[in-house]
Amino acid sequence: MSQRIDYHNDPNAPAANSLVPSVNVVVTNDTGEVLLIRRSDNGNWALPGGAIDLGESIPQAAIRETLEETGIVCEITGLVGTYSDPGHVIHYTSNDEVRQEFSIVLTARAVSGQPTPSAESREVRWVLRHELDNYGMHRSMRLRISHYLQRSSPYIG
Amino acid sequence: MSQRIDYHNDPNAPAANSLVPSVNVVVTNDTGEVLLIRRSDNGNWALPGGAIDLGESIPQAAIRETLEETGIVCEITGLVGTYSDPGHVIHYTSNDEVRQEFSIVLTARAVSGQPTPSAESREVRWVLRHELDNYGMHRSMRLRISHYLQRSSPYIG
Repeated sequence: MSQRIDYHNDPNAPAANSLVPSVNVVVTNDTGEVLLIRRSDNGNWALPGGAIDLGESIPQAAIRETLEETGIVCEITGLVGTYSDPGHVIHYTSNDEVRQEFSIVLTARAVSGQPTPSAESREVRWVLRHELDNYGMHRSMRLRISHYLQRSSPYIG
Repeated sequence: MSQRIDYHNDPNAPAANSLVPSVNVVVTNDTGEVLLIRRSDNGNWALPGGAIDLGESIPQAAIRETLEETGIVCEITGLVGTYSDPGHVIHYTSNDEVRQEFSIVLTARAVSGQPTPSAESREVRWVLRHELDNYGMHRSMRLRISHYLQRSSPYIG
């Protein structure tokens, strides 16, 4: 079966052979809730996001991925940080791609739409800020959300 | 002869076939001067920078490229913005690569070293802020520097 395996500073991790620029988006609504998806591939909760396609910009990719994965139309409002730790690699067993983490994380406000699951997101939910800790997620995603909640200058990693 | 040709919103531009994440760095010294290189490939003045290699993070690439192209060791201090306009493509005639713009622009302060040219930078110079306009550069580079000088929130493009 095809798997996605995350490695963190693991001496047994396979060497990276790909770097795919991607985005994640912290989308909030009028009451300050944060939009989370539950990933279909591994069951973790996460921010919407994905790879940037040829022919689109970073904010365009952020808006497209959010709509595809959540049914929510959003407007970009700011930048949480850059996440490119070479110690974090993701092994896709289906084709032996070993992808090095590379994500730009933006903030956005919801403009329209209703939470709607997709092939990549088995659940989509608005989550109160103080309840975010109750949602199981990968440590790299938890880090991005904690940087957003701290609201300091952009993180550069 | 091998060439690098920039296209901007040009209906005759070739379609992008590659997206290579890269960095540029606005390095300043104690007197606030900005570090510029004169590119060997097209004679334009520019911020130091280049592609991010597998195995390194965005700030690591920024520090490495700055040292290679300028002889200056720097320390990352902040983020100017993201630049990923799909209307800007660069055609490398040597291998017909058509690369879509994708650059993260950081700020840094110089820690040590002396301006030193390299194969990629025929000149390296500390430039007073009010003299930056006198240096001929590509419009995409001018935009990055103007965003830096305006010192507003990060640009997201």
